Amino acid sequence: MPAPRVFLDAGGRAPVTLRTREAFLAGLADGWADPRRLTTESRRARAVLDGAREAIADALGAEPSQLHFVSGPHTAFDHAIAGIHRARRGRDRIVATSIERRAVLDAAEHTAPGLVDRVPVDRDGHADAEAFTRLVSDPATSLSLVQHANHEIGTVQRLEELVDATAAGGVPLVVDASASIGHVDAPVHWDALMADPADWGAPLGIGVIALRPRTRWLEAWPGDGLAPGGVSIPLALAAAVALQERLETLAATRERLHSLTARIRDALAALEGVTIVGDPDERLPHLVTAAFMYLDGEPVVSRLDREGFAVGSGSACGSDTFEPSAVLAAMGALTHGNLRLGLPVDVQDADVERFLAALPRVLEDVRRTMQG
Amino acid sequence: MPAPRVFLDAGGRAPVTLRTREAFLAGLADGWADPRRLTTESRRARAVLDGAREAIADALGAEPSQLHFVSGPHTAFDHAIAGIHRARRGRDRIVATSIERRAVLDAAEHTAPGLVDRVPVDRDGHADAEAFTRLVSDPATSLSLVQHANHEIGTVQRLEELVDATAAGGVPLVVDASASIGHVDAPVHWDALMADPADWGAPLGIGVIALRPRTRWLEAWPGDGLAPGGVSIPLALAAAVALQERLETLAATRERLHSLTARIRDALAALEGVTIVGDPDERLPHLVTAAFMYLDGEPVVSRLDREGFAVGSGSACGSDTFEPSAVLAAMGALTHGNLRLGLPVDVQDADVERFLAALPRVLEDVRRTMQG
Repeated sequence: MPAPRVFLDAGGRAPVTLRTREAFLAGLADGWADPRRLTTESRRARAVLDGAREAIADALGAEPSQLHFVSGPHTAFDHAIAGIHRARRGRDRIVATSIERRAVLDAAEHTAPGLVDRVPVDRDGHADAEAFTRLVSDPATSLSLVQHANHEIGTVQRLEELVDATAAGGVPLVVDASASIGHVDAPVHWDALMADPADWGAPLGIGVIALRPRTRWLEAWPGDGLAPGGVSIPLALAAAVALQERLETLAATRERLHSLTARIRDALAALEGVTIVGDPDERLPHLVTAAFMYLDGEPVVSRLDREGFAVGSGSACGSDTFEPSAVLAAMGALTHGNLRLGLPVDVQDADVERFLAALPRVLEDVRRTMQG
Repeated sequence: MPAPRVFLDAGGRAPVTLRTREAFLAGLADGWADPRRLTTESRRARAVLDGAREAIADALGAEPSQLHFVSGPHTAFDHAIAGIHRARRGRDRIVATSIERRAVLDAAEHTAPGLVDRVPVDRDGHADAEAFTRLVSDPATSLSLVQHANHEIGTVQRLEELVDATAAGGVPLVVDASASIGHVDAPVHWDALMADPADWGAPLGIGVIALRPRTRWLEAWPGDGLAPGGVSIPLALAAAVALQERLETLAATRERLHSLTARIRDALAALEGVTIVGDPDERLPHLVTAAFMYLDGEPVVSRLDREGFAVGSGSACGSDTFEPSAVLAAMGALTHGNLRLGLPVDVQDADVERFLAALPRVLEDVRRTMQG
């Protein structure tokens, strides 16, 4: 009997749970109508949407009226950044840490071409608070972009070290929490928050923007709202239920996964030519990224896949080419090849052990093939 | 026993069928992984996505490689218009019929501020072919926007009268088919096609852009693809299956609904102060729009809702205010109040008769209340 497949690539997307699936179906049954019309069907759809909004707002510590659903995380990045920048008319620079998500940096660059100031990070991926403070003090700065946690290396930023500088300058702190919600406690310090329900176990197709009541956001043209045409109410409900499900066991899951990833980090670090990246403690509990000194990532992933293990590599945002990771480059880490593990919530200890037992042989095989 | 509710507001959104629901769940089971990675799970997701793409491309007469999924119809409008305009560098005007969807006109106006030329329409909603030809002959014209059918009044445009002028000038004919696919045969004449699966019975949350191989499209910045971050594969599969389901019975359904709406048009036209808008023959089979001379739309919709009938009114794009319809205004029709019926595929003849029996009394009640 072949061993069952082991899925260790749960960063951004994973199979949805039965409960989340049922929530989607309930949303489909009661939330198919356009919530902006006057009929009974529309009122029922609106009630489902409002319920989902309240549940997620509550989990994020946001005002329900300031919690907006959009069509996906990329739309969340684009809309939040462009709209907040627009509302800060007269200030044209954007400050961003150098390891923000590619899509966030692209949206910033599109919004303020040539005027995005990058804040360097240290070897563990923490933003340089001094450089950040200096940059947000520039009166030309319109907003600052800081991720809550990095989707590749797992490092959780010290927002508490950065928030005072943004508050002092009145510069909105726009936090990309698309890799952290549902894995660790939601961040407290933000003026705008962007989140990705697919990362906490919802089906893809919806994004979240939360604004503080004081945070101004301006549309590009009349009728260009945050989600013109509306969003999928079944997906909103599924997102709310998936988050609820994660939060119910957050503390226990976090502890269990943190231990498992600590075990993986130790085992990988003991291998020749392998470096573990990201903060060893202040990090997402489910991610491990290893950089290889002499190996490409692609053959390692393919070989592991044939052995029954699904893992990630390359730029974790899902590009189809194996370009060197911009995040690792910004940290001064090795970027020849890398491997990213994302443990799903229901990962078994035995699966992790099987993976760790198989990995050295796989690396050896790939190394031999590359030399041969 | 109270009579069951009658849903006559199927323009844009409607309950999904069991088969479409099952397709979504199958897509969720096999298509949750990121299709751009190297694992077995990703290859499986990619196969589901490719299958959905091929099925929809086939139905639209498009090349599968030129069929793009985006996060919704509004994104389809924005991306198609902006990207094609960008690729026509040096030409800065856009030609659009005056009854294009609000979201299409907004996207055009955002792309070419102050440079959108509107083509007038006749009383039935057909674009003035002479004016259209003159405008697309302007060497400054970058692209032309013509809807296949209007979402409010149902009129199907005579694309065959317009295509020669666009071909002669090399001006892309960008066709908004977001109200017609699945209701009538797909249009033949287009250089780019935009479609909305929710209108043919799929759950909301995905949009479609089809390009001819000769049609150039340019991204706004590197990495800004047509659907950055990917689309929902379960929704893509549900969209493909919902379309398949519609096409299997298209001819029979079209004939049946066309007769039913003809019956409704006649019955409404016989009422005092009511005018039927849209072409009586060259139209979508499931829509009827009536304009009232002395009545507001809102109380009519609300009163009908209480009587158990869900119908639409106001701007059919789902705005939350009852603004006068821009489409009706462009046609020179009465815009004081209007009522839009959208018959779902499974509408019963008896439901239509019940509605027609109730309507005169409802209109009389509303008229009395307004005068009182």
